[in-house]
Amino acid sequence: MTHFVLLLFLKNKGTVEFYTFINIGGTIAFAASGALAGIRKKLDIFGLAVMAFVTSVGGGTLRDILIGHLPVKWILDSSIVLLIAGVTLITVLFKNRIGRLDKTLAFFDSLGLGFFTLRGIQEGIAIHLDIPSCLILGTVTACFGGVIRDILLNEIPTLFRKEIYATACILGGVVFFLLQKTNISAQIIEFITILSVFGIRVIAMKMDISLPKID
Amino acid sequence: MTHFVLLLFLKNKGTVEFYTFINIGGTIAFAASGALAGIRKKLDIFGLAVMAFVTSVGGGTLRDILIGHLPVKWILDSSIVLLIAGVTLITVLFKNRIGRLDKTLAFFDSLGLGFFTLRGIQEGIAIHLDIPSCLILGTVTACFGGVIRDILLNEIPTLFRKEIYATACILGGVVFFLLQKTNISAQIIEFITILSVFGIRVIAMKMDISLPKID
Amino acid sequence: MTHFVLLLFLKNKGTVEFYTFINIGGTIAFAASGALAGIRKKLDIFGLAVMAFVTSVGGGTLRDILIGHLPVKWILDSSIVLLIAGVTLITVLFKNRIGRLDKTLAFFDSLGLGFFTLRGIQEGIAIHLDIPSCLILGTVTACFGGVIRDILLNEIPTLFRKEIYATACILGGVVFFLLQKTNISAQIIEFITILSVFGIRVIAMKMDISLPKID
Repeated sequence: MTHFVLLLFLKNKGTVEFYTFINIGGTIAFAASGALAGIRKKLDIFGLAVMAFVTSVGGGTLRDILIGHLPVKWILDSSIVLLIAGVTLITVLFKNRIGRLDKTLAFFDSLGLGFFTLRGIQEGIAIHLDIPSCLILGTVTACFGGVIRDILLNEIPTLFRKEIYATACILGGVVFFLLQKTNISAQIIEFITILSVFGIRVIAMKMDISLPKID
Repeated sequence: MTHFVLLLFLKNKGTVEFYTFINIGGTIAFAASGALAGIRKKLDIFGLAVMAFVTSVGGGTLRDILIGHLPVKWILDSSIVLLIAGVTLITVLFKNRIGRLDKTLAFFDSLGLGFFTLRGIQEGIAIHLDIPSCLILGTVTACFGGVIRDILLNEIPTLFRKEIYATACILGGVVFFLLQKTNISAQIIEFITILSVFGIRVIAMKMDISLPKID
Repeated sequence: MTHFVLLLFLKNKGTVEFYTFINIGGTIAFAASGALAGIRKKLDIFGLAVMAFVTSVGGGTLRDILIGHLPVKWILDSSIVLLIAGVTLITVLFKNRIGRLDKTLAFFDSLGLGFFTLRGIQEGIAIHLDIPSCLILGTVTACFGGVIRDILLNEIPTLFRKEIYATACILGGVVFFLLQKTNISAQIIEFITILSVFGIRVIAMKMDISLPKID
């Protein structure tokens, strides 16, 4: 899978295609994780679709509300709604076999994390916010869909308790702003930012690193 | 009760009065259900008022935020706030006798469901959204007040687990859009849409039908 | 501590300084209470920062969304974000000794309650809302950060169950509007409003008064 992505990038059909690919891949991974979380809580099929939906577009929706970019984007273009409905259906149909896709989903989840962080930061820059606010928007975009999912499922959000997830977004965002002071081209900076978030997230998962708790 | 409504309609004082009647009846039914849910969770009187409030206006509020129709409507006109405060008080005073009103409340709840669905769809059409987004706005308007209520009461929203509720809104919305392709007048289409949601909801309740869960 | 505040006021360097003082003091108290609630639920350090943040700015954020004052204010000026991050860190470092600050924090929490209520009411007046809506905005500004905190921590919001908290805001707001009919100057009215909320809250705490529950 990794090979396929790199190939796609090297072929250099253009970064637009690459980003579209990550965007769709990330959306699918986020939606599938939402639907699976709903299945574990024994929701009905409508509930699963809502879970898939809020997990994948909830973060961007919250960002758009905070900065007043309304109507929210997904309501102006139904293709994403239909994509998520399709993912929900496929997740339900193949739920017993989806375990085999664990690694693929985690791969796209982490790649999506990087991409959505970048998107959030860029939305902040577009309206001239300062760096801390841009980092917040990046983190909200990438992580708060999962927070809304957990609230709806009546759990304390995982984001606040376990694993390096938001931290990867914040650190990746810091990399982004540090690189702004160099001569590196915008495209390369974007690519490195996504890879930073992706890399930190993957390393933290493999090494089972998490933030300290306070006792 | 049903007779009374039909009579009101047949008398044809105008559809405006009919819609005002459904709107107020639906708001009261939603508010009472919110207050009753709060009583079961032993909230204080302020908590009950908030529950009544979010249950009846929460869905429309979420819709208005998503499409950027701000300030939200109820803040510009306090009559709905005062109506809901009154319903809360009456629910508290007559909570032991309100069981007798179960059927009347369910009747207005289902009628309100249809009316609020229609309102949400029409808000979507007014800003030229496509059909799936209109269906989402209809469902959000009619159903997500209850979702906010359940979140505040620390429960997994009933909407995602039991009963045909959102499904009635979506199917009623589909009826609405199918009828757009006919020569039927707008008023009749609106009436049929409300009745469709109402009918599906009532039949599902009587026959105890619910969506499949995924095990 | 109380002496210090009164001194500051009597010195009359100007009400602006006084309000800045209450605003910052209230923000710190709200943030510390959020971080402490997060520690009790064993969140990690990122989770604590989010709790501190939503507790102190969540109410104002919800108000700004409802009235469409977007982007929300804290995203346009990072100083409040940095202040809250600092409070989180200090709360974590001194959590064992922060018990000694209980009274100071409660003092500023109650003062902040009054100040944020006033701010919410004034935002409502600025866009010509009627009195009930202004009271709602005051209460939302002062109290709903705590509601969001409790939802994220998977608890039924304290605000709906215990203590005189929202009631103090509503009553203080009523005092504000009653005084509008007198010849008292705007500044004095503002001061009395804050003191009313503060006083009701403090008396209710000392006398352990709470709203009636409905059984």
